[in-house]
Amino acid sequence: MSVALVGAGPGDPELLTLRGLRLLQTAEVLVYDRLAGGGLLAAAPADALRIPRDELTQEEVNRLLIKHGRRRRVVRLKGGDPFVFGRGAEEALALARAGIPFEVVPGVSSLTSVPAAAGIPVTHRGAASAVTAFTAHDVEALDTAALARVPGTLVAFMGLAGLARLAERLVAAGKPASTPTAVISRGTTCHQRTVAAPLGAIAAAARGLETPALVVVGEVVAVGEAIATAGEAAA
Amino acid sequence: MSVALVGAGPGDPELLTLRGLRLLQTAEVLVYDRLAGGGLLAAAPADALRIPRDELTQEEVNRLLIKHGRRRRVVRLKGGDPFVFGRGAEEALALARAGIPFEVVPGVSSLTSVPAAAGIPVTHRGAASAVTAFTAHDVEALDTAALARVPGTLVAFMGLAGLARLAERLVAAGKPASTPTAVISRGTTCHQRTVAAPLGAIAAAARGLETPALVVVGEVVAVGEAIATAGEAAA
Repeated sequence: MSVALVGAGPGDPELLTLRGLRLLQTAEVLVYDRLAGGGLLAAAPADALRIPRDELTQEEVNRLLIKHGRRRRVVRLKGGDPFVFGRGAEEALALARAGIPFEVVPGVSSLTSVPAAAGIPVTHRGAASAVTAFTAHDVEALDTAALARVPGTLVAFMGLAGLARLAERLVAAGKPASTPTAVISRGTTCHQRTVAAPLGAIAAAARGLETPALVVVGEVVAVGEAIATAGEAAA
Repeated sequence: MSVALVGAGPGDPELLTLRGLRLLQTAEVLVYDRLAGGGLLAAAPADALRIPRDELTQEEVNRLLIKHGRRRRVVRLKGGDPFVFGRGAEEALALARAGIPFEVVPGVSSLTSVPAAAGIPVTHRGAASAVTAFTAHDVEALDTAALARVPGTLVAFMGLAGLARLAERLVAAGKPASTPTAVISRGTTCHQRTVAAPLGAIAAAARGLETPALVVVGEVVAVGEAIATAGEAAA
């Protein structure tokens, strides 16, 4: 039959797309990430086979999608967007090689929606006309010289564990220690928490926050604060 | 009452979020971008006031949102995601200053969904662990030295008109002329067209394509081609 690689969005089930919901409602097999599962599993038919992905390697997931995809309508529900730090292209490549028809259904990426949920735009006229997103699980491997120099907003996925070192390396590479920075923990869920501080002080300020978390570095953090302050002043 | 700044997604009405649809279905006033309007206007109540935004300046849009937002449920339907090159934060700031309650409903951004519709992931293990998006309507103003050096994928919005100069400046700044590049015109709609070529040859190859178009520069373009080729070989 076929496999749909569906982006579930950042956590809030209401941020699933209409196309994603329709596919979910007619799925025979559902392979889902823990992060993406949440309130969405109930939308699939009661008799659909539900397979959590957590314990599986990427290779095992690929094999599972190929096996079920030969005979049944499979939905692979992935957090955020399948093609943004989601390893969706690895699954697409495995399916293509096996001759299984598949489609990719984009989702609302954490890249933009998690900052938005904290009131922060990733671009803003006069503050940032570019945005660079990267994974920061291996801080030492990052080209921080290039990241410190690229104009606009920086958004780090998986940046909480190595935050002190990430901030230190960016500052050493020339990013001003005064750059407004925010860490958003468990964004778009009811457990969301946001901490903001200058880049040079963010690691201390963010102590105790839980993963998953997104780190946003740039003047847009101050824009978010200006929006919040204006709203409070007018209220 | 209130204003919802709703991301309509990249063009395909099926890529609206559930939250966006719900707000649209109970809107009293709808202020919409031409790009976002498409198949979505029919989802609003028949008696909702429909105001196209095209002829208005940003300042006029802000005033309109404030005026109607005082008394009615307003949906401001924006192409893509409101907070990604969408000037949504300017509208949020104007509403906050006027004391009008508002919410931001993220949408599927063109940044990821238009490449996905052309089979191209913006990140891929081994090919790109970062992605930088920027607007290229003013090519001479771009810091192409920084853009050429930042690792990972480049995604240029509004990059078609100045594509020859953009490619030239990136190559002059050190980006290899052989870097796989794609231009996706009218992505996610039934008029979608994609052209791929090395960065040094992309401007000639993309001649005649229509706006809106997204330019994707990086090894991920070759990953997309590998997926397509594998699928054809297995079919």
